Amino acid sequence: MWISKKFKYRSLEEVHQIIKKVIPHGVEYEVIPIFQACNRVLAEDIISDVDIPPFSISHVDGYAVRAEDTLKASIDNPILLKVIGRIYPGEKYKGEIKTKETVYISTGCRLPIGSDAVIPVEMTRCKGNFIEIRHSIRSYENVTPVGIDIKKGERLFNTGHVLRAQDIKLLADIKKWKVKVFKKPSVALLSVGDELTDQIEETDKKKFDSHKVMISSLIEEVGGIPLDLGIASDDINSIKKLLKIGLKRANIVVTIGGASVGEKDYVWDAINQLSAPKIAVRGIKIQPGRVTSLVILNDKPIVLLPGHIQSTVAGFYMVLLPLIQHLSGIPSIPRYMTLSAKMSQEIIVKEFKSFKRIRFVKISKAFHDYIAEPVMVGDSSLISVLVKSDGFIVISEGKETIKKGEKVDVHLFKGLPL
Amino acid sequence: MWISKKFKYRSLEEVHQIIKKVIPHGVEYEVIPIFQACNRVLAEDIISDVDIPPFSISHVDGYAVRAEDTLKASIDNPILLKVIGRIYPGEKYKGEIKTKETVYISTGCRLPIGSDAVIPVEMTRCKGNFIEIRHSIRSYENVTPVGIDIKKGERLFNTGHVLRAQDIKLLADIKKWKVKVFKKPSVALLSVGDELTDQIEETDKKKFDSHKVMISSLIEEVGGIPLDLGIASDDINSIKKLLKIGLKRANIVVTIGGASVGEKDYVWDAINQLSAPKIAVRGIKIQPGRVTSLVILNDKPIVLLPGHIQSTVAGFYMVLLPLIQHLSGIPSIPRYMTLSAKMSQEIIVKEFKSFKRIRFVKISKAFHDYIAEPVMVGDSSLISVLVKSDGFIVISEGKETIKKGEKVDVHLFKGLPL
Repeated sequence: MWISKKFKYRSLEEVHQIIKKVIPHGVEYEVIPIFQACNRVLAEDIISDVDIPPFSISHVDGYAVRAEDTLKASIDNPILLKVIGRIYPGEKYKGEIKTKETVYISTGCRLPIGSDAVIPVEMTRCKGNFIEIRHSIRSYENVTPVGIDIKKGERLFNTGHVLRAQDIKLLADIKKWKVKVFKKPSVALLSVGDELTDQIEETDKKKFDSHKVMISSLIEEVGGIPLDLGIASDDINSIKKLLKIGLKRANIVVTIGGASVGEKDYVWDAINQLSAPKIAVRGIKIQPGRVTSLVILNDKPIVLLPGHIQSTVAGFYMVLLPLIQHLSGIPSIPRYMTLSAKMSQEIIVKEFKSFKRIRFVKISKAFHDYIAEPVMVGDSSLISVLVKSDGFIVISEGKETIKKGEKVDVHLFKGLPL
Repeated sequence: MWISKKFKYRSLEEVHQIIKKVIPHGVEYEVIPIFQACNRVLAEDIISDVDIPPFSISHVDGYAVRAEDTLKASIDNPILLKVIGRIYPGEKYKGEIKTKETVYISTGCRLPIGSDAVIPVEMTRCKGNFIEIRHSIRSYENVTPVGIDIKKGERLFNTGHVLRAQDIKLLADIKKWKVKVFKKPSVALLSVGDELTDQIEETDKKKFDSHKVMISSLIEEVGGIPLDLGIASDDINSIKKLLKIGLKRANIVVTIGGASVGEKDYVWDAINQLSAPKIAVRGIKIQPGRVTSLVILNDKPIVLLPGHIQSTVAGFYMVLLPLIQHLSGIPSIPRYMTLSAKMSQEIIVKEFKSFKRIRFVKISKAFHDYIAEPVMVGDSSLISVLVKSDGFIVISEGKETIKKGEKVDVHLFKGLPL
């Protein structure tokens, strides 16, 4: 177990506290049409200023009646009501329904004055200008009363709520056509390494920078806007140049690779040459991913992700994801899609006992239980481990053993259809 | 409980069987760059024709050694190795390492001939042209052996797999720059109703067609391309006209509203006037949503969704979602994101006992368990029920009671961060 002395590992909780305290919480917002607001984070509380429905309406196609007129109706005692009018979608009946009268009414139409219930068309029989009914009906049966769905003055959503399809529909129904949402944070990404290229044509000689492709995709998935700065060579000036561009253009700057203590790991030095960081966390107590670092420079966060892909991904989920969520205006970070599962086998993790240990798992289903099977960790540079996994578990500091059958929280890479 | 005789309700399983048998399973495909392929469905099996890594590489920044040279190293017996070269990212050492020799090696570099392990830089001390080591190291320690990640000839993905960020990275690593994916099915949508408008300016007089906005959003969420045909009035010709356009332009046509048996419910008649349907399922044994119908006309599916929003949504998840998934090339439909939860209270559902009953629920977490709380059903036209819910459960035919604490499968509306 190697822990370099150049790193002063801080706990993940401390890092999340720093994010919450130092980084502004979704301050930037924009006002957009609701039709573009799905998956966006609300930057205002929404209170309804209307009732839905605005008046009592029929829930079915049928006949609006006075319930009391039907009280004695039965199969042996059919009752006749006179049809005095018909209203179809978008129309309103202007008259009043009196005793023994009825009006044909379409679903969604406003209940005529005098009526208090609707008898479905299937329950009636037409007899010239009359309908025959053979069942009694209660007051308000088949009626959607005014305000039953949404009441005027009701609080519908709070700031920080992520809007879904049904929420957008509701906003349209209360005629709230535009909403204030937090701006998506932009995340500038640069990879570091002389061996890398982002040109497919050069991949005979150099290694394609596939890490950035993956991290860029994950940034989008969690609501950030990735901004590709390209590749810096293993050279302080090259790294500094791209960092400067990133700090100017984006809300967050992320570097991939070059953050450890190898002879050519220059990212840390490059940052320190730019200006004195307000906050500098070098190393975080997570494994894989312990090289992950967080710097706040000119009030902007820079996240240093390690170069081995499993460590890169661990750094993403543990540090970059909560940072993006925080800047997006999402409360109580970090937020994962989490499944509760039982471990398929005992796992013993003795290494890095004072760290949070991340283990990738595959999920399967056994009747009503989910089973989490650890995917062989091996070497943290293996992409196959991530491809075989559905998510990961986080083993707390000090814990050495997870028993077979023990319940664990699995944070999913992505919605998992099972 | 009203079940119209015009409907011949078929079971949901029958409907899914029809979809699988009659509708082509993701036949249309396209070849696209992998960088655009996230969330797309593979239309080919992927076999690797390379080893990853292509040769044994160092997992750390350190010194490449012959493990046998370090066998006797200890704190009391430090051993000196002569540094005969240095290789940095992208470089290859051309010579051979002999006994008591070493080469500085950066992470990811190819292991020099003669060496079989790497000692991390932090475990060494520099002494002029030599390094001192105080620990023995095993053969292959800190080495990622050739092919350990991916083997040449290995099957990586099957047709039908939905590509995630890590999968795209792997495809880039094996230099598979383009992939064959199934085309996204296009879904033409039309609402029916004289009372509706899709013009915000007209909403003083007419009802805004917010159903279509919601369903359109859900279609996109599950991988379809929504195509808005607008609104048909309650008139056979108006409906026929839009249906024709939809059948010409899209893979699936969906109508919202006008599908029941009211005086002005013309959708069914309009379809029958177009041409004789190959298959016509009028009514499905789901509640809410029983009016949902499926027609296959000129080999194209038309889905009739009911107009009450809870029924519309039930029809979407039970019929339209599996249809879109099937056309997208996803195997074993329907696929939902599902959570296993315990019911918070007993629920008794006596109505529509021979149907599948859908109940919307809210999820909360209690330690390692998820709790599903039913959201008051009320009237199926209430949008507030969907806004308060996180997903739904499906109660099987014949079942009347779900006990308090009983485990249920909750199909989530959307990834739920908990």
